[in-house]
Amino acid sequence: MDQPYRQLRRDLARQRPFDLAEELTRLGRTERAVAFRLLPKDLALAVFEALDAPVQGELLDDLRDEAVREFVAQLDPDDRVELLDELPAKVVNKLIADLSPHERLLTTGLLGYPPEAVGRMMSPEYVALKATMTAGQALERVRAVGGAAETVYTLPVIAEDRRLIGVTSLRQVVLAPPERQIAELMTEPISATALTDRETAARLLQEADLLALPIVDAEDRLVGVFTFDDAMEVLEGADTEDHTRAGGAEPLRRPYLVASVPRIARTRAVWLLVLMVAASLTVLVLNTFEAELEAVVVLALFVPLLIGTGGNAGAQAATTVTRAIAVGEVRFRDLARVLAREARVGVLLGTMLATLAFGAGTLFLVLRGEPGGDAARIAAVLAISLVGICTLAATAGALMPMLAKRIGIDPAVVSAPFITTTVDASGLVIYFLVAKLLLSDLIG
Amino acid sequence: MDQPYRQLRRDLARQRPFDLAEELTRLGRTERAVAFRLLPKDLALAVFEALDAPVQGELLDDLRDEAVREFVAQLDPDDRVELLDELPAKVVNKLIADLSPHERLLTTGLLGYPPEAVGRMMSPEYVALKATMTAGQALERVRAVGGAAETVYTLPVIAEDRRLIGVTSLRQVVLAPPERQIAELMTEPISATALTDRETAARLLQEADLLALPIVDAEDRLVGVFTFDDAMEVLEGADTEDHTRAGGAEPLRRPYLVASVPRIARTRAVWLLVLMVAASLTVLVLNTFEAELEAVVVLALFVPLLIGTGGNAGAQAATTVTRAIAVGEVRFRDLARVLAREARVGVLLGTMLATLAFGAGTLFLVLRGEPGGDAARIAAVLAISLVGICTLAATAGALMPMLAKRIGIDPAVVSAPFITTTVDASGLVIYFLVAKLLLSDLIG
Repeated sequence: MDQPYRQLRRDLARQRPFDLAEELTRLGRTERAVAFRLLPKDLALAVFEALDAPVQGELLDDLRDEAVREFVAQLDPDDRVELLDELPAKVVNKLIADLSPHERLLTTGLLGYPPEAVGRMMSPEYVALKATMTAGQALERVRAVGGAAETVYTLPVIAEDRRLIGVTSLRQVVLAPPERQIAELMTEPISATALTDRETAARLLQEADLLALPIVDAEDRLVGVFTFDDAMEVLEGADTEDHTRAGGAEPLRRPYLVASVPRIARTRAVWLLVLMVAASLTVLVLNTFEAELEAVVVLALFVPLLIGTGGNAGAQAATTVTRAIAVGEVRFRDLARVLAREARVGVLLGTMLATLAFGAGTLFLVLRGEPGGDAARIAAVLAISLVGICTLAATAGALMPMLAKRIGIDPAVVSAPFITTTVDASGLVIYFLVAKLLLSDLIG
Repeated sequence: MDQPYRQLRRDLARQRPFDLAEELTRLGRTERAVAFRLLPKDLALAVFEALDAPVQGELLDDLRDEAVREFVAQLDPDDRVELLDELPAKVVNKLIADLSPHERLLTTGLLGYPPEAVGRMMSPEYVALKATMTAGQALERVRAVGGAAETVYTLPVIAEDRRLIGVTSLRQVVLAPPERQIAELMTEPISATALTDRETAARLLQEADLLALPIVDAEDRLVGVFTFDDAMEVLEGADTEDHTRAGGAEPLRRPYLVASVPRIARTRAVWLLVLMVAASLTVLVLNTFEAELEAVVVLALFVPLLIGTGGNAGAQAATTVTRAIAVGEVRFRDLARVLAREARVGVLLGTMLATLAFGAGTLFLVLRGEPGGDAARIAAVLAISLVGICTLAATAGALMPMLAKRIGIDPAVVSAPFITTTVDASGLVIYFLVAKLLLSDLIG
């Protein structure tokens, strides 16, 4: 190996695995494969573990040799399942065949659960205790079998039939006198079944401040543990999903720079299309009020301003309420309270904007050459419409995510763009009705 | 105590503390204080710890008695600091005076750090080891002083001058032979200084998959540990901030149902106002093209549809890129790549929508009674504008959060509403310029 390469290799070896993983992710596929080859073997394994599953899959594809396949055998069973999900079935079968019988059993066991179930992300390698053990015996057990376990900090306690009857921690075991019984150290277990949705399990772990959540089967028998690092990953994924849905797109499910342009376009195309079709309602509304529009063309000037403001007010309400639902602050039975609050917020905000719009609007219209009386009346139409539109938008913006949640749709789908598009048409109706009422002589 | 109360009390005692905390948060202040009083004392402490700091503050205010003040003394120093931040200075001084000298020292130490610094959230109660200890001695040390520590799983290793020289874990200490030296069990420490921004520290902890991050002072001396549960709380808060900003509002910083209506309105008022002022640019643009609008009034019908679609395309790009920045997938030096990708995505999506809009638009205009040739030409204006607007919107939507990040503004501030409002005016310019070009005979 040349001198500069050796230097580069030494520099690389000084980096942290997760920093290197981040850098590798940002490279093109070919450069990434070359760079990965330069890593010393131990570091390469750590970096490989830190990569996202889609990137691991690409690397595996680019470096078709035994050295890299060995890494797959070294992954924890739950991480391995995540990677296998990214690969074509043929590669998966080859990789599983390469595993030791024990690892193969653990892996295929996890693969049997549905994709969104926490069973797929749990670790089947844990240390379980019996209630009749002493703290000293428990510590010996951790020493004997803990080396292979994903965590030794959360210690589930099981009965003879493997039913989960309690949970204790290495902290309690270490701090207790060695002769103390585990039965005295354990608490009521907080657990989830293997078929629980992974996001639900992750939120439970987070809310209960646990390092690991014991996972049981339908008969309440212990089958694995779900650790906090996997839970954090799930919650980050769920947040990314909420974020992108709130922007009217579907999640990419891989790092941005790794996703192809057609893939990015696909995550947005359906929503953009649906929203445009929904927006064609505004064309029909304007078509209905064409007589008013022709009579007072100046009304058209304020259309983008009005519907834009309504959209913004609706997006604000929707975002706040969607987040409150996601973190469990608001439930469906709070609907009446939430709507009453948002209606009041809408009136407050609408009145503030209306005051400004009336002043500025009158001034603008007078400068433009409208007679003073007409100017004030047109500005009044603008102001009154703003109060109506803001109130409607804030209420609708809060209502829609709550209804979505109620009927089992992800509330984040009721995104800012969705709300905006929906309140646009109704905002126009309010505007032209107010105009017809106040400007009947001009419209004739 | 009456029979029904005793029953209620028994029912309550069976709930999990974090479920009770969630329920209490959703109650009105008076009901919450009454319900809290019904809790058995041990449970009450656990529930108090699980409440958000603003709600703890309200309870403290409503239950002005010694029993509740004792709870403050029982909190971990970092949680106590979070609560004290919510209270008026007079109450804070009284509460601090009530603490034991040791707890007082720990608390005021944390209070000395700036609000956003990780120093305020770290725990000053940890177990530090020396490199010269054996694993057996280390375990004894954990047994001796671990009872009061917030975590005993991450064990920082310090030199004589308290400088952090390594880190090991209870797992390694327990699994190693008792005579093994800590120097052999420790690894290079990943740490942060006490003045590090708490979100940065939390992301570091998450990326490195740590249970706790050692915190050092400017001289690299160990001053505390930042644990994963606090990090998860910080990241959830940061996500809420990003979410609400993406919807064009400021975070409430307290549970939705606890925040007052004027407080909610305040978090939205400034942005709504700024956006409306920005939106008045569309009034000026339309005013400039009034001649075209009067000549072909039908052009006005498509204004909301066009700018709405542009806004949606921009919001999609902004959301994706903002999230990619937040999780570290994209940096400023990727700007050219990101813009090139978004421009291509914009052209792809714009072309798709244009095809649909040309067909549907021609049909609509013919049904409305326009001559066939004019209908097709107006629909062509619509289609060409859509390609231009989508490309502009996707590029601008990606550019703005990256520029914001570069100049040190939270990229999430460049929200969907912000992008929408910005691309509205430029979209209108594109639309009317294309119209002037293609419909010169009609406009005259």
